[in-house]
Amino acid sequence: MKITVAQIEVIPNDPQANTAKIISIVNQAEKDGADLVTFPEMCIPGYLIGDNWERSTFIQECVDCVNDIVEYSIGLNVAIVIGSVSFDEDKNGEDGRIRKFNCAYLIRDGKVLQKRIKTLQPNYRIFDDNRHFCDLRKKHAIVDERYIGTLDYPVSEVAGKKIGLLICEDGWDDDYSTVFGDFRPVLKFEKTPDLIVNISCSPYTNGKNNKRNRTFCSGSYDSNAHILYVNNVGCQNNGKNVMVFDGGSTMYSPFFGEAYSLYSPFQEASQTFDFDFEEELPDVPGEDGMPVLYQAVKYGVQKFMQQTGITKVVIGASGGIDSCLVAAIISQVVRPTDMWLVNMPSKYNSGTTIDIAKKLAEKIGCKYSSIPIEESVELTRRQFGDGLSEFALQNVQARDRSSRILAACTSVFETEGWNGRAAFTCNGNKSELTVGYCTIMGDLAGFLAPIADLWKTQVYEMARYFNENVKDIIPKEVFDIVPSAELSVTHNVDEGKGDPIIYAYHDKLFASWVERWNRAIPEDILMWKFEMRLEDELGLDFEIGTIFDSEQAFIDDLERWWNLYSGFSVAKRVVAPPLVTVSRRSFGFDMRESQLKPYYSKGYAKYKALLLCRDKM
Amino acid sequence: MKITVAQIEVIPNDPQANTAKIISIVNQAEKDGADLVTFPEMCIPGYLIGDNWERSTFIQECVDCVNDIVEYSIGLNVAIVIGSVSFDEDKNGEDGRIRKFNCAYLIRDGKVLQKRIKTLQPNYRIFDDNRHFCDLRKKHAIVDERYIGTLDYPVSEVAGKKIGLLICEDGWDDDYSTVFGDFRPVLKFEKTPDLIVNISCSPYTNGKNNKRNRTFCSGSYDSNAHILYVNNVGCQNNGKNVMVFDGGSTMYSPFFGEAYSLYSPFQEASQTFDFDFEEELPDVPGEDGMPVLYQAVKYGVQKFMQQTGITKVVIGASGGIDSCLVAAIISQVVRPTDMWLVNMPSKYNSGTTIDIAKKLAEKIGCKYSSIPIEESVELTRRQFGDGLSEFALQNVQARDRSSRILAACTSVFETEGWNGRAAFTCNGNKSELTVGYCTIMGDLAGFLAPIADLWKTQVYEMARYFNENVKDIIPKEVFDIVPSAELSVTHNVDEGKGDPIIYAYHDKLFASWVERWNRAIPEDILMWKFEMRLEDELGLDFEIGTIFDSEQAFIDDLERWWNLYSGFSVAKRVVAPPLVTVSRRSFGFDMRESQLKPYYSKGYAKYKALLLCRDKM
Repeated sequence: MKITVAQIEVIPNDPQANTAKIISIVNQAEKDGADLVTFPEMCIPGYLIGDNWERSTFIQECVDCVNDIVEYSIGLNVAIVIGSVSFDEDKNGEDGRIRKFNCAYLIRDGKVLQKRIKTLQPNYRIFDDNRHFCDLRKKHAIVDERYIGTLDYPVSEVAGKKIGLLICEDGWDDDYSTVFGDFRPVLKFEKTPDLIVNISCSPYTNGKNNKRNRTFCSGSYDSNAHILYVNNVGCQNNGKNVMVFDGGSTMYSPFFGEAYSLYSPFQEASQTFDFDFEEELPDVPGEDGMPVLYQAVKYGVQKFMQQTGITKVVIGASGGIDSCLVAAIISQVVRPTDMWLVNMPSKYNSGTTIDIAKKLAEKIGCKYSSIPIEESVELTRRQFGDGLSEFALQNVQARDRSSRILAACTSVFETEGWNGRAAFTCNGNKSELTVGYCTIMGDLAGFLAPIADLWKTQVYEMARYFNENVKDIIPKEVFDIVPSAELSVTHNVDEGKGDPIIYAYHDKLFASWVERWNRAIPEDILMWKFEMRLEDELGLDFEIGTIFDSEQAFIDDLERWWNLYSGFSVAKRVVAPPLVTVSRRSFGFDMRESQLKPYYSKGYAKYKALLLCRDKM
Repeated sequence: MKITVAQIEVIPNDPQANTAKIISIVNQAEKDGADLVTFPEMCIPGYLIGDNWERSTFIQECVDCVNDIVEYSIGLNVAIVIGSVSFDEDKNGEDGRIRKFNCAYLIRDGKVLQKRIKTLQPNYRIFDDNRHFCDLRKKHAIVDERYIGTLDYPVSEVAGKKIGLLICEDGWDDDYSTVFGDFRPVLKFEKTPDLIVNISCSPYTNGKNNKRNRTFCSGSYDSNAHILYVNNVGCQNNGKNVMVFDGGSTMYSPFFGEAYSLYSPFQEASQTFDFDFEEELPDVPGEDGMPVLYQAVKYGVQKFMQQTGITKVVIGASGGIDSCLVAAIISQVVRPTDMWLVNMPSKYNSGTTIDIAKKLAEKIGCKYSSIPIEESVELTRRQFGDGLSEFALQNVQARDRSSRILAACTSVFETEGWNGRAAFTCNGNKSELTVGYCTIMGDLAGFLAPIADLWKTQVYEMARYFNENVKDIIPKEVFDIVPSAELSVTHNVDEGKGDPIIYAYHDKLFASWVERWNRAIPEDILMWKFEMRLEDELGLDFEIGTIFDSEQAFIDDLERWWNLYSGFSVAKRVVAPPLVTVSRRSFGFDMRESQLKPYYSKGYAKYKALLLCRDKM
């Protein structure tokens, strides 16, 4: 069977552009003699378009686009699978607006052979499916195994093969059940299909590729059908989270659990494959790990800039590892002439870091400036007299750099050379963002935070990866100095004085609060400490006793960071720029947060008392 | 029947504090000889706590708190209605975590007489109920009228009366249906109750009080039962939206649709009422309109400051209406000694506005400073040479004011007098926020935007209301000048040169994009214009032709603002501070937005062509 797998870039909110692209690929597939051409989920409207789903005129236009494709298919041999939104004229959704569905269509020769409504809808992380769409279970007023017979899972013949359709989460059925047991759409078809086409709009997450291969291989094995997973590329955002889509379209076979990855990640492609459902597939499960993680970040930056029309980038280059990595990534996205590295020294900045920043710009071959902040900081100090504490003056420096200098640089850069739109980056990482180790209107500002979903330890790893595998431009010295904000005499890198965060430990601690599936709270941490299994639970490769010489010191440290994480840092994240999401849980609209007082459970007090007793022994 | 209606302030994320308060009120109710004491929905955990629902240790603690109350009730006569989270040990939720429910409990003498799971869960606006909780329909695998008999809606006898429980949205059943018709929990009880207690956590919205009275009156009439609506006060937030809860606890009678509002809005109270279910109730439907709208804004500011520990406020006082109103509101929340009005003149600021700012501070009796920005702007101009355009220099001024001066003021203010935490306000309004007529790190910055959910026309109304009904402190002159940013010679208020937004028209236009239930897009606007019904649809009290002298001018204006609204201004809103939400649709997580290219439907081009033909006639 000849199938054109259209792993396209979907432009969110632009049904006309997407439909034009779909029709052109259908045309090519027909010329190639394909029996079937498949597109991703929601390939007409896009998926992450916020609450624009409420606009009924937009919904009608998406329906019209489906009809255009149906009309275009008249007289063609190739059958077409697309995804779009549909609506029910008679019924309202539970928000009182028109009732909408996330649908897959199988179209051939002017007819809709199948219209399949999504059965399982994700409502965790960034996903708001139930907010917008009525799922098949709700539509049929059925989530009950006894009535499952009436749910409509037909198969259709295409080129002599039985084809069934599923949509994304329908294939991720691990956590769905009825009162009578598991609920698995892959097993619900009226006849066993030869091929289940799963159209998806599934964002990249570090490590998710392996998980998908396990889940879909067992879906294929259990259903005794081949599964073709078709996912889009491109980037879509929810305001706060820039989600990248890696494609990763894959054919799964029911025989020995082979996963045949069809394309490289993040590649727009629409090749025609000749599949023999009787033969073994090559087992090519697709890549994961640092190479793909790096690609994901770079791709997110590149696509987000395309979408927002930003073509020139200003980077505050402190000479630290974060801005070095951001500059390295940006150097792979724009031409050197469209990059401007700006070092903004105060009296606290060392020659060491200034040299690193300068060397980096030289290696990239981009514009470099040193614009000092001393005069402005002095003016502010003068205007406010002794009222500004040493700590307040640290923030004054950070704000002067971003909101005065970098912002002005973008204005200047826009008028230079050709007329592009310029913006400056936020170079913060996830460790800082977790506890708010950053200044609002200072280093927290920017149009995008490319590496704010990477822990500091990952930032170092990616920087090393970059030098070894992409281009050797990040100066070696930056790997040897301590990470430091250089905002006061207590931050002297040449004296080895740096950040208060002990990244080897705190990155793992913070991850247990943020990324762990059952997110830990201080009670859990103290319980693990008390039960001598903290190292195992956090995945530390050293004894925690090598960092803290008493339980009191351990607890003080825990409370310090917990109070920041669940206190003031939330306010900082609320006004943080969008970030490229690559982890299983990122800040923004992925992990929704309220500004609250830090919470300590009753059990926390118990474990604290137990641990402090140990200090006295 | 004697009922203590506990309209309490619930502290989100603090089950221990809430439980202590509940037990103390139960104790008082018992002393008062009450038969029943009722608390609001989720009165133990709070409601808007973001994704903290994922922490299983927290959930267990909330369950323990319910058990504490059950234990406390042993030997008491008073029956207790509370709301909290519960979980199912055997089943996972569809996110793979423990399955949780939003529950109401009826407790008496150490026993749980009823545990009622919420049937209808809202998933629009700020509500994410399905993200966190399994509703009764899903739990019983039933959304089908045929199986409704097995859904458990018991009634219990208390003081000889039959009591049924519902939770918030269960009473707002307008938009819920099954395949067989309407689905109305008020009609599902096993026997007709004498009293349905609806415990709620329902945020204030301008105009919602009237809607609730209509909905609950007809619920009471149709079910032939009294309904007691018990709602909390306080403020809870989702990061972006500070939601205020007005209480508004009300008894509804089934006879003639009386609504007997028990307390003033935003008042924490727990009085004991003696209800005779045979007698007519006084018809006191509770207030709405500007007095309550003003209270809502003030209350939101006050409570949010309490929650975040901010006690001193710095306000950039330009002498315009927005900062005047914000200062007036703040003057009702903190002592004059904890307020600091800062005027930051450049060469573009008129004596007129400077005088207004100064006069305002005098009337409030608070600290006032004039801190000029000229020297700093000059320094920036000097550092960047001619690279900064006139437009760029406008933004330089705005950023200098907020990120240099106001931020430094808060640092200084914190160290003065007593040790409180200081912050500065964002004085922007909804009209500006809609189209991004503001500067990031400039006037868009602040810890909270008190009036960012009020259109400019509402800002004027509230300012007038304040002077007439609260305190006459806003200088009269501000009502006479044109609204202006005063950032260039083109903004001269003394010459009547002001903002490009024509508020009388644009406020209504923008509201049709943001607040209208079926949100309008440009195609709708042009269709209305073409069909000569734009004035009716937008609610204008003037002819649109008085503003635009051609269709071309009308369309250019529409496209200008639409491009801003659906383009760059989204990026601004992503980094905007939290705002006090008072309208039916506010920016933030109430209206979720992606950064996208502005969208024009196919139909737009058609109407545009039709309209432009008129210009040629």
